[in-house]
Amino acid sequence: MRAVDLIAKKRDGEVLTREEIKHFIDDFTRGDIPDYQAAAWLMAVFLRGMNRQEIVDLTLAMAYSGDVLDLSDISEYSVDKHSSGGVGDKTSLVVLPLVAACGVPVAKMSGRGLGFSGGTLDKLESIAGYNVNLSGEEFRALAKANGIVLAGQSASLAPADAKLYALRDVTATVPCLPLIASSIMSKKIAAGANGIVLDVKYGRGAFMTTAEDARALAQIMVEIGADAGRDVIALISNMNQPLGAAVGNALEVREAIQVLGGHAPAEAKDFEEHCLIVATQMLRLAGRGQRWTDEAQTHAMLQEMLESGKALAVFRRMVEAQGGDVRMVDDPALLPSARLLVPHHAPTGGYVADVDALAIARASFDLGAGREKKGDPVDLAVGVYVPVKIGQYVKKGGVLAMIYTNSEAKAEMAREQLARAFELSNVRMTPPPLVDGMISSL
Amino acid sequence: MRAVDLIAKKRDGEVLTREEIKHFIDDFTRGDIPDYQAAAWLMAVFLRGMNRQEIVDLTLAMAYSGDVLDLSDISEYSVDKHSSGGVGDKTSLVVLPLVAACGVPVAKMSGRGLGFSGGTLDKLESIAGYNVNLSGEEFRALAKANGIVLAGQSASLAPADAKLYALRDVTATVPCLPLIASSIMSKKIAAGANGIVLDVKYGRGAFMTTAEDARALAQIMVEIGADAGRDVIALISNMNQPLGAAVGNALEVREAIQVLGGHAPAEAKDFEEHCLIVATQMLRLAGRGQRWTDEAQTHAMLQEMLESGKALAVFRRMVEAQGGDVRMVDDPALLPSARLLVPHHAPTGGYVADVDALAIARASFDLGAGREKKGDPVDLAVGVYVPVKIGQYVKKGGVLAMIYTNSEAKAEMAREQLARAFELSNVRMTPPPLVDGMISSL
Repeated sequence: MRAVDLIAKKRDGEVLTREEIKHFIDDFTRGDIPDYQAAAWLMAVFLRGMNRQEIVDLTLAMAYSGDVLDLSDISEYSVDKHSSGGVGDKTSLVVLPLVAACGVPVAKMSGRGLGFSGGTLDKLESIAGYNVNLSGEEFRALAKANGIVLAGQSASLAPADAKLYALRDVTATVPCLPLIASSIMSKKIAAGANGIVLDVKYGRGAFMTTAEDARALAQIMVEIGADAGRDVIALISNMNQPLGAAVGNALEVREAIQVLGGHAPAEAKDFEEHCLIVATQMLRLAGRGQRWTDEAQTHAMLQEMLESGKALAVFRRMVEAQGGDVRMVDDPALLPSARLLVPHHAPTGGYVADVDALAIARASFDLGAGREKKGDPVDLAVGVYVPVKIGQYVKKGGVLAMIYTNSEAKAEMAREQLARAFELSNVRMTPPPLVDGMISSL
Repeated sequence: MRAVDLIAKKRDGEVLTREEIKHFIDDFTRGDIPDYQAAAWLMAVFLRGMNRQEIVDLTLAMAYSGDVLDLSDISEYSVDKHSSGGVGDKTSLVVLPLVAACGVPVAKMSGRGLGFSGGTLDKLESIAGYNVNLSGEEFRALAKANGIVLAGQSASLAPADAKLYALRDVTATVPCLPLIASSIMSKKIAAGANGIVLDVKYGRGAFMTTAEDARALAQIMVEIGADAGRDVIALISNMNQPLGAAVGNALEVREAIQVLGGHAPAEAKDFEEHCLIVATQMLRLAGRGQRWTDEAQTHAMLQEMLESGKALAVFRRMVEAQGGDVRMVDDPALLPSARLLVPHHAPTGGYVADVDALAIARASFDLGAGREKKGDPVDLAVGVYVPVKIGQYVKKGGVLAMIYTNSEAKAEMAREQLARAFELSNVRMTPPPLVDGMISSL
């Protein structure tokens, strides 16, 4: 089986067999297929597509290219979640403590931000001392002892995905359904959870721009999970306006702490509700038809976990266990803070008709909150706070956004992005739904 | 201008500008764009195509990626030829001496064989001592002194093409019109000739399988040449059955010497005629409307050059000048010869309805006449001799092909290929035309 023949086969739109895909991925992971052959193959996959079976085979080949965690000694049934990435998406920070507070252990590996999308690890590092680099042993020990751990992904999980992703990033082969689906699901399968809740975003601030594309991605990911013996629920959710109000690492941690403590401000209520929906589905999986079957009851119970301070206590315990400074949890004012606050005002009065999540993400990126390439440093303190939501009335001169910056020049760049981010109208628009649909393997 | 953006642009089927193409090729040639980005770009070009202007721009960027020869001190107007590669295609060996014998200097750089297609350099090396590795100075000096030189391509000509071609070979991006056209024409433009005759083959033994594809390739190459200020004539010729009878390095040199000396056997008359057609067009270019305007007269004059021994004398002079053993020219029996001759017999009597050039090429390859990858050695002595042509009657048990081999095991492999190569029929088929059409920039 020569690599060049497998490239030619996909180039001509033919279907690759399970053996061919496994051979390609294994040889590539070992370094026996060079990057240039993998790059040509990726572009052929991008332009010719893959059928359902090929995507399943690709995912499994990547998942089994390294270690596959076995969490059965930590919990009989473990749950995990994944978001396809959105603007202001700090859901993991709230959802994991919520679920853990209900007695379901969560052991999650997260990633760093790249380009306009943020990463949970960067956000957590806003808390001084928080250690995301745990060994496999430390990771398991914390999960066992505490029922919650949130750290960086081990290099031994799905190494094929890490290698392929780095190559996709520089060969213009990132936005491609088979490659996105297999990348996400290979990591989730290798991470060992029995039940997985996927939050598949669509809109300007997401990989998928339309609900239809997001649904197609969700469908194939649920099918892949089912083929690999995992229970999967995928939520399809709108990412046209940011989730919550805070975009930027420390700003998002502050908002997560507010929500966890039951003190979400009005502009973060959408984010709170989104977290409750995700956590409800994670518990539904963990309950396996025996517990947490009534979604309204579960939702109410989770709300109570926020209001009672129980969820925040679990978050605080996690931070402490991973070496973070809990004083920052107790008083978010101690988190890294920007030198300058620059308000962005409404040029006229009107109803907010649109908040362009991508423009907000770009503004935050321009301020230094994101990284252009892997390994670049990020400024944890900076970002954009958007206190308005679609449908809300704003007076002329009212604050549409607050820029948190350490540089006047960068603030100017951010203002240019923000100038295009808001649309005001005489007519009140109905806010878009948070979640548009759900696909489940149950 | 980031490489990844240029890849994405072509991936999305957009048109690249001249500046973008030049930037990509220059950076790639310098090593500033890595192979994996070029590989993804090549696959995007393969699947999305290029328009006429993009192909012209790509060709010129490659042609000017290194030295461009100036032959004006050797001749006011120099001519060159190129064949898109066929089975048994030893045309250069005959045509260059023919044209030089008419007083038109020829200074040609040729290539080596790869896969099923042979290369002029390998064929010439059948003649002991023949030196294909000339410095730029030696090349020019021989052209000036002798009016003929035939050597390997200098690494300083179109280095972008050499680098891209090596990458195409391992990334399944070879059979692609824009890439084939730009590869051929960039080398021809860099080689400095004013007039170029292209022999564009189609059929089973060629890059292009249909006459229509060959015509499209010819058309774009003529246009590219015209844009670069060169006169170009492209012949469209059939390559379903081998050209001449000999396939294999030394066997082809022997056949070329027979034709050059006016002693072509019946089965090589098609090859002789093909050489006369190509040479007629080269002289037509060299005559620039002043001389050699009457093709029938030129054809007759060239025939006389063969019969009088003048063309062979020029070939002998070239061999001598490049260090080759002229005794092998005088007595081709001295050329490398195979240890075993194995005849392949007709299983029934009938008219030859088909001779599959690709199967003959594969048989020759299996015998060791070709190389799988660059740098592999070739066996100069081996090959296949096909004494029959389409339309000819063969008795049961008559010889369809003669295998020249140094290994019984390899002969067996070749026999398997040959078993599929011939089709015999009760009905006499008209032989296919040698040349189906011509496209000219004149």
